[in-house]
Amino acid sequence: MELYSTDRLAAARRAAADAGLDALLIGPSADLRYLTAYDAHALERLTLLVLPADGDATLIVPRLERPAAEAAVGDAVRLVDHEDGTDPYAIVQDLLGDRAKTVGLGDRLWAEQVLALRDALPDARQALAGAVLRGLRLRKSPAEVEALRRAGRAIDAVHERMGQWLRPGRTEAEVAADIAAGIREAGHATVEFTIVAAGPNGASPHHGVSDRVIAAGEPVVVDIGGKMPDGYCSDSTRTYCIGEPPADFAAYYAVLHEAQRAAVAAVRPGVSAESVDAAARDLIAAAGYGAQFLHRTGHGIGLDGHEDPYIVAGNAAPLEPGMAFSVEPGIYLAGRHGARIEDIVVCTDDGVERLNTIDTELVIL
Amino acid sequence: MELYSTDRLAAARRAAADAGLDALLIGPSADLRYLTAYDAHALERLTLLVLPADGDATLIVPRLERPAAEAAVGDAVRLVDHEDGTDPYAIVQDLLGDRAKTVGLGDRLWAEQVLALRDALPDARQALAGAVLRGLRLRKSPAEVEALRRAGRAIDAVHERMGQWLRPGRTEAEVAADIAAGIREAGHATVEFTIVAAGPNGASPHHGVSDRVIAAGEPVVVDIGGKMPDGYCSDSTRTYCIGEPPADFAAYYAVLHEAQRAAVAAVRPGVSAESVDAAARDLIAAAGYGAQFLHRTGHGIGLDGHEDPYIVAGNAAPLEPGMAFSVEPGIYLAGRHGARIEDIVVCTDDGVERLNTIDTELVIL
Repeated sequence: MELYSTDRLAAARRAAADAGLDALLIGPSADLRYLTAYDAHALERLTLLVLPADGDATLIVPRLERPAAEAAVGDAVRLVDHEDGTDPYAIVQDLLGDRAKTVGLGDRLWAEQVLALRDALPDARQALAGAVLRGLRLRKSPAEVEALRRAGRAIDAVHERMGQWLRPGRTEAEVAADIAAGIREAGHATVEFTIVAAGPNGASPHHGVSDRVIAAGEPVVVDIGGKMPDGYCSDSTRTYCIGEPPADFAAYYAVLHEAQRAAVAAVRPGVSAESVDAAARDLIAAAGYGAQFLHRTGHGIGLDGHEDPYIVAGNAAPLEPGMAFSVEPGIYLAGRHGARIEDIVVCTDDGVERLNTIDTELVIL
Repeated sequence: MELYSTDRLAAARRAAADAGLDALLIGPSADLRYLTAYDAHALERLTLLVLPADGDATLIVPRLERPAAEAAVGDAVRLVDHEDGTDPYAIVQDLLGDRAKTVGLGDRLWAEQVLALRDALPDARQALAGAVLRGLRLRKSPAEVEALRRAGRAIDAVHERMGQWLRPGRTEAEVAADIAAGIREAGHATVEFTIVAAGPNGASPHHGVSDRVIAAGEPVVVDIGGKMPDGYCSDSTRTYCIGEPPADFAAYYAVLHEAQRAAVAAVRPGVSAESVDAAARDLIAAAGYGAQFLHRTGHGIGLDGHEDPYIVAGNAAPLEPGMAFSVEPGIYLAGRHGARIEDIVVCTDDGVERLNTIDTELVIL
């Protein structure tokens, strides 16, 4: 079961043509890795895949990066390199000339490249490639689901070690440093984030870490993730308490626990993304915590940590088999504490599979 | 000596006006951190500093990020937040309306944001903010030089521990993992890169790491860097040999060593960036290795790991006090081995200061 397939380039060309794009122009990004297996560094030197809807792919790379690029793409893609001091945009011009009336830019291409391409291809209308590539990346292949399953097991193994690290008297930052080492030890290639949010910090969903000393009896939100060597991401949140939790916390944790299970259970082909959000939100609102659930229920995951589909009110798109995303409701009491539970799940042919398989009960350490 | 100063916003507004830009639009980046002290995550949710040349700054942030943004920017910048499901570009429109005829986009703003801003401000010509901000960031303040000095000392301390880690029989990847831990232990907030290139891998300047087992007698290029908690970057390369090096290697290392010293010694106010490149390149070429020195001599460093000034043929701009950059010539014998020596230096009022202060001799372990 191969993770990467050269069919992806052909599929992207067809999708580009269907969308009226004459070429896709993709810089270092998950899109590039998806299409070519090349995990390029984002550099001031231009790396750009030029994929005409009606022609073969060319990857423009800085000469220094050529060995790494060759090793990654094999002979599926022609390589053209450029040296320091030369103009790489002239290569794009040579490749596309005035044939391209509309080009699809990688969504995360840098503005400096967008404007240089505008100048190099003055007659080409610029649109986004994401609209095209999203459709391909949205449904994971069986090999991709297996990659996300491996990532899920790896981050689960880190949560299972939390008792070694999360102790009263230590700072959030100290615990986060241990978690970072644990994320690598569990097989990730990189650490993407380590949120350790104790007590009132737990009420801020995107708190990172601080030098706050963790006290006994404090709930601690731990939201962590990394990227595996194959590029697929992990992301999982559990809430811990060192000793018995405050009574008000225990009450809303039970609500949250029920809401997260209900949202996971709502996942199946044909239901809308927003209905999964509603499944969690309605229960939380009914218990009186609606205003304390500050964010959407989830985001897609794959080669990017956040990608489509977004599990949010307003996204009426139906779920399909192979879509993978987080289900992560939270309840946040400003100035006091907060809780969040997050699993990555994948929509299957007839329901849902959780890719994080450890318990979602409050963990008392 | 404060690292961050609110004078920077005023200076940026003046520089924007001088360049004919009616507003700067800056997303998560070193530019944003430079201007506001806010180290924002690059997210699919919009974070954007709107800085009119003739008005006050507004920072648009996702609601979830508001606490972190407030903590960073204090009351120097007005904050406006937006919720999931609303259109943040409407806020930009409200702020600028049709007053802005030309806007300067942050150089690394994502294409999806560039095109959304094109649609939100259809009458505004898009240019790059970098041309304006580069001039401000190019000359480091005394506090910034001190920050780079701290970063230099931190990465020097990592190189000084190399004998603990770099041993025959270990893989490049194993050594790199130890180095990564060492980079954090030395006070960096993040590990930016850990190149460990043994034997023939050393001949590829941008080799990362591999599972190659390091053998006795092999030269090993170790190029490492991180980001300090204040955002300033370190970057230093030393070449090691486990036991006695091959004779051909020892011969060209001596040339490289002399060339790197000559290039450092060439740094002073008023000389051109390219003359520093030439100081190294001429010596290397005279010794017959010109074709084996594959890249420019250096890059600027600060809140970005690579920024202006670039020390490269064609850059005739004169050096000025406060400019900080790498001096890192290399010699690469394809299929055999390679060597590089890299120090960060800063141009002073009358010469040069090395911010990496450890020896540049070949280290025999």
